[in-house]
Amino acid sequence: MKLSQIYSILGLEFSGDDIEIVSLSSLALAQRAQMSYCDSPKNTKYLADCKAGAVLVSKDMVDIVKSRAVVVENPHLAFAILSKHFSKPLIREFKPSNIDESVTIMPNAYIGSGVTIGKNSLIMPGAYIGDNVTIGSDCIIHPNVTIYADSVIGNECIINANSVIGSDGFGYAHTKTGEHIKIYHNGWVILEDCVEIGACTTIDRGVFEPTIVRKYSKIDNLVQIGHNCEIGYGSILVSQVGLAGSTKLGRNVIMGGQSGTAGHLSIGDFAKIAGRGAVSKSIEGSKEYGGYPLMELKEWFKTQARFLREFGNKNSKKDQ
Amino acid sequence: MKLSQIYSILGLEFSGDDIEIVSLSSLALAQRAQMSYCDSPKNTKYLADCKAGAVLVSKDMVDIVKSRAVVVENPHLAFAILSKHFSKPLIREFKPSNIDESVTIMPNAYIGSGVTIGKNSLIMPGAYIGDNVTIGSDCIIHPNVTIYADSVIGNECIINANSVIGSDGFGYAHTKTGEHIKIYHNGWVILEDCVEIGACTTIDRGVFEPTIVRKYSKIDNLVQIGHNCEIGYGSILVSQVGLAGSTKLGRNVIMGGQSGTAGHLSIGDFAKIAGRGAVSKSIEGSKEYGGYPLMELKEWFKTQARFLREFGNKNSKKDQ
Amino acid sequence: MKLSQIYSILGLEFSGDDIEIVSLSSLALAQRAQMSYCDSPKNTKYLADCKAGAVLVSKDMVDIVKSRAVVVENPHLAFAILSKHFSKPLIREFKPSNIDESVTIMPNAYIGSGVTIGKNSLIMPGAYIGDNVTIGSDCIIHPNVTIYADSVIGNECIINANSVIGSDGFGYAHTKTGEHIKIYHNGWVILEDCVEIGACTTIDRGVFEPTIVRKYSKIDNLVQIGHNCEIGYGSILVSQVGLAGSTKLGRNVIMGGQSGTAGHLSIGDFAKIAGRGAVSKSIEGSKEYGGYPLMELKEWFKTQARFLREFGNKNSKKDQ
Repeated sequence: MKLSQIYSILGLEFSGDDIEIVSLSSLALAQRAQMSYCDSPKNTKYLADCKAGAVLVSKDMVDIVKSRAVVVENPHLAFAILSKHFSKPLIREFKPSNIDESVTIMPNAYIGSGVTIGKNSLIMPGAYIGDNVTIGSDCIIHPNVTIYADSVIGNECIINANSVIGSDGFGYAHTKTGEHIKIYHNGWVILEDCVEIGACTTIDRGVFEPTIVRKYSKIDNLVQIGHNCEIGYGSILVSQVGLAGSTKLGRNVIMGGQSGTAGHLSIGDFAKIAGRGAVSKSIEGSKEYGGYPLMELKEWFKTQARFLREFGNKNSKKDQ
Repeated sequence: MKLSQIYSILGLEFSGDDIEIVSLSSLALAQRAQMSYCDSPKNTKYLADCKAGAVLVSKDMVDIVKSRAVVVENPHLAFAILSKHFSKPLIREFKPSNIDESVTIMPNAYIGSGVTIGKNSLIMPGAYIGDNVTIGSDCIIHPNVTIYADSVIGNECIINANSVIGSDGFGYAHTKTGEHIKIYHNGWVILEDCVEIGACTTIDRGVFEPTIVRKYSKIDNLVQIGHNCEIGYGSILVSQVGLAGSTKLGRNVIMGGQSGTAGHLSIGDFAKIAGRGAVSKSIEGSKEYGGYPLMELKEWFKTQARFLREFGNKNSKKDQ
Repeated sequence: MKLSQIYSILGLEFSGDDIEIVSLSSLALAQRAQMSYCDSPKNTKYLADCKAGAVLVSKDMVDIVKSRAVVVENPHLAFAILSKHFSKPLIREFKPSNIDESVTIMPNAYIGSGVTIGKNSLIMPGAYIGDNVTIGSDCIIHPNVTIYADSVIGNECIINANSVIGSDGFGYAHTKTGEHIKIYHNGWVILEDCVEIGACTTIDRGVFEPTIVRKYSKIDNLVQIGHNCEIGYGSILVSQVGLAGSTKLGRNVIMGGQSGTAGHLSIGDFAKIAGRGAVSKSIEGSKEYGGYPLMELKEWFKTQARFLREFGNKNSKKDQ
């Protein structure tokens, strides 16, 4: 899309060099033919090195970006509005698929266009394989699983029934009057080899880049993995775990049932989070944690014991 | 159904005016051709003004309802038993559908009878659109979504894969010996315009009236919305939130991941609930809340800090 | 499979009596033609009475099992490796089905081979009924429900949309280098008569035996029931409850929304767990519980009150 068209969509008057913008990206990743946005003073540090051909900024950031600045009142909102125009169509142009002759596709499964499926994989009834999806060899896609377009599934993966891979991330920009404008997600999901996903689990696609579940990770039922998460090698997420967007797990992390994380944080290699643990900031690896607020597990047990001694007793001094 | 038949179903001997009862309703909503029930002393205040042609009551309430009283030992149980007889059939009589010619219906989607779908909407593979459902224009119903009969979806709505709209609410009456008798729900679900629903989210239908999600509300993955809830304009429910039945959210309420509410309470406009927050009673708007027990968020942070200072320290005096 | 083949799979040198092993089982259940494993000193007490024809043990347990010992470094891991070889195929050999002529099967439903369905049951669009499943009479299987092979559903059961019955349990053995080897589950799921399951709920099959939901139990939306659980007569599980594996609930247990349990514990008859309650060890029946750590509900309320008095007050002494 020509930059002048983008100005027109945003209701701005165009002047300058009318370059072609092929897609949107983050400040860190954007290339010359891409457009990015800066919506917060804490991200201005990325502006100097940003290679984007155009950047949505507020008035006070113009000096940093100079001629590449597209000045708007609310850069995040302008980005959301544009994201719809740059989103890939849900149904793509026809491309031939490449499905190994040893693959079994059962009745009522839907296979999109441009799909690749490796040898001996099984696609069960009601499964939806979106356009441009790649599935490796020896995979089992159970009934009624939905795999959105562009997802990449490795070899020997098992996805249990009714799970959803690659759904849109939960991201919106907000107007002054309280409406929420959808940010269309052009990222995708990668499951590496030997990943197993339980039933009714949801893994959202990234905004620009993939959400990744690394090799040998095992994910139970009813788990939520937000956009742009990365789950390290051999990690284990027990049922009803919830990861907010951009959470990064190291290798062999274990998260117990109903535990959860806030977004934009990291958990170190070999960390263990007990069931119900609530991770609200980045934590080191090779330790066990639990509780809410989260602390080291042995501290959580001691804290509970002290707390109960003081407050839980029927004859507590505090109650007299 | 004749009132005499209702007596017969309940094993009661009939006398009086054999009026026609067309459906069941609540004390507040019931009209002359409807039947209602009063199962609790705290609801007797509604009896005086109730317009129902017949009311299931216990012996002690007869004087208030007089000739309209249908006296039973357990009015709630009698109501549940009758609800099956008044429930709408899952598959309705055939009625022609009204689907705009610009609508795309992909393979393996099921479209019931009497369905209306507005222009440019997309129904993806494996989606189930029950009888008498209305879907507006420019909607996307992703693969394997189930929309139960009678649901009403506005314009520009997106429902992500494998979500369920309009499932039966979780309501039962209980026998003395511990069996649970299903209350058939004749309500429905309304999603107003520009609502987005995540993947594997469930929204139950109301008992008599609709469960409502108002315009511009955005609901993430794996969220539970109980029967008779109302979600106000532009509200945001993050992943794994759970709302018990009859919860009313004002406009632009934000609920963080894994937070939840008890039933029959209201949350004021512009309230924010932090992740994991547990709302157990009605709360005012325009404030931030968090924690369990719920309190104002800044208090929750202070409380946590005090608590950790006292109990969380390895050298805590309490531990000596 | 001959025992010599099993040795070969495990890379061991065979000697002795080359008996036929037909399946794997637990120490307690195994019969002469089965193989079992003992992976922990606390289970050696079962070894003496174990009837298995062969038992995977570590070196130090050889003396107890004598000639039946199959000595490996990690019996649990060896068991996991073998479980794949003994797993039933996902798609079984063709057997005729036995579907009553009064059954309604709607479009796009998939009915496997060897399926039995009783009179008047309704199978809605997109439902998947795996091989060898039995469904009683007067059942409703809503759209896009997935019922894995071998599940047994009683009479008058209702399964709401997009739920999953009989998915593989979440069980793995772990290598020294952090990979997880899947334990194939040959158990199944039994729902007794008059059970209702909500939408997007998941019930995993047992390892060797069934996961059981007893008569009249009612389970809401988005509930997780792990492998080998047993839910007693007339129990009620509200939305987003999570039960870890091998949890045993007595009769008429009630668990509130978002409550959960650790695994391998039991809850007594008529116990009530408040919403969010976290059950970490076995508890007696006929009492009400709540909180985290779990305590009797009235104590939880008092404890909260004392805690808030001490820590929650804006003018708390602790803050000075």
